[in-house]
Amino acid sequence: MQPTAAIVVIGDEILNGRTADKNINWLAKVLYDRGIKLAEARVIGDDENLIITTVQHLSASHDMVFTSGGIGPTHDDITTVTIAKAFGVPVIRHPEADQRLIDHYRDTGLDYNEARQKMADTPQGAELIDNPVSAAPGYIIGNVYVLPGVPSILQAMVENMGDQLPGGTKAHRLTVQTEVGEGTLASGLAKVEADHPGVSVGSYPWFKPGAYGTALVVSGLDQDAVQNAAEALVALVAEFGGTAYIDDKVVGGNTPA
Amino acid sequence: MQPTAAIVVIGDEILNGRTADKNINWLAKVLYDRGIKLAEARVIGDDENLIITTVQHLSASHDMVFTSGGIGPTHDDITTVTIAKAFGVPVIRHPEADQRLIDHYRDTGLDYNEARQKMADTPQGAELIDNPVSAAPGYIIGNVYVLPGVPSILQAMVENMGDQLPGGTKAHRLTVQTEVGEGTLASGLAKVEADHPGVSVGSYPWFKPGAYGTALVVSGLDQDAVQNAAEALVALVAEFGGTAYIDDKVVGGNTPA
Repeated sequence: MQPTAAIVVIGDEILNGRTADKNINWLAKVLYDRGIKLAEARVIGDDENLIITTVQHLSASHDMVFTSGGIGPTHDDITTVTIAKAFGVPVIRHPEADQRLIDHYRDTGLDYNEARQKMADTPQGAELIDNPVSAAPGYIIGNVYVLPGVPSILQAMVENMGDQLPGGTKAHRLTVQTEVGEGTLASGLAKVEADHPGVSVGSYPWFKPGAYGTALVVSGLDQDAVQNAAEALVALVAEFGGTAYIDDKVVGGNTPA
Repeated sequence: MQPTAAIVVIGDEILNGRTADKNINWLAKVLYDRGIKLAEARVIGDDENLIITTVQHLSASHDMVFTSGGIGPTHDDITTVTIAKAFGVPVIRHPEADQRLIDHYRDTGLDYNEARQKMADTPQGAELIDNPVSAAPGYIIGNVYVLPGVPSILQAMVENMGDQLPGGTKAHRLTVQTEVGEGTLASGLAKVEADHPGVSVGSYPWFKPGAYGTALVVSGLDQDAVQNAAEALVALVAEFGGTAYIDDKVVGGNTPA
């Protein structure tokens, strides 16, 4: 069994289309590599009630929840206040976070005003997540990891977390690439999956000018079973007169289209 | 009031990080331009129970729901079967969809086998959404719009929908760009928002080598109120000795980082 996780991206700018979220895919890859099963991701607006009910539901349903966004200094940054409400604890000015921001703003020459002091607030009982870029920390409360929305800062913070970020059993994954269409292979794919318990086979069609094909993604916790299933898929493609190869690279980005 | 919508992206490949979703942002822009308020987006796996509960909840909470993914020919394409269960209706072989696919596969020379015939299935009572690219249709059942996962096909289908896609009152949006940091402006931003009822002010910091600043996004249904709030923000920036300009272009992609 792998621990399960959910991601909650908080921000009106994603929902109105102004900004394309980058954090779900980046975090999904990190969680996959650490053996954590991402079960669900949600994008919600700067809406107090929805943040509270979403965080409470996902926190109760999964081993960990990652939130992104809404921890800056401005009026639309309501994540900390609402997460505190979700946990039924007060917001406090975190002394260590406060000191880090005092030091940071002394160096920048900017005024550490009331708005910026808000970035030192956490729900009571939170453990800080260091911010190696711009000082203002994230934090962990219960099983909820509260991170910023700016992708470069979120990424630096997560890469810096070390043992604060738990891990599980890493899945194995192989991709079988072929130019045979998925509709031709479909009944065989279901049989290969059924013949290899614990292995899942995903079928992703791709299209480009003058060619089309299928990426068959085989994954599971047992490396031998994944390898055997991948070889069975190569044999399946051969039954239809096609060729296929097994690619063990992590395939980034989108299915070719 | 604007009608509200939710998006449900269905597919393990998004959650395990293999594929970066492109459909949420693309649909978010379309909905924004049509005056529909996107209230929530979720990414879930190929999991029958979760698809059913998610679609039932969002269908009851919003004026419309758009799903993406899981309507292909293979064993991991379970969207149609699960949406039918969510609505408590049987799956039928849709005669018009069947005829379109018969014609399509006759032209391609590929076998219109049992797996491909599955793409002609819909929940009983569904209205087809044409697919100008690869014939296999999407459909509308109740207030749920069922679309494919491949971005290029989803986009062609939505652009082709015409009056099948409802509309609402389009929001107005202006962006005020400045190189003054959001922490400096924060208390003034809250005041500008409070002074302009019906207008929301979002604050998005950006960073690049040697510079930083803030994009202030002003939006609302009343064009004059949005313009007045944007001008108030320019005046606010000037109070702090900075310069700002109002940009009425739709700002695509991400906040500069």
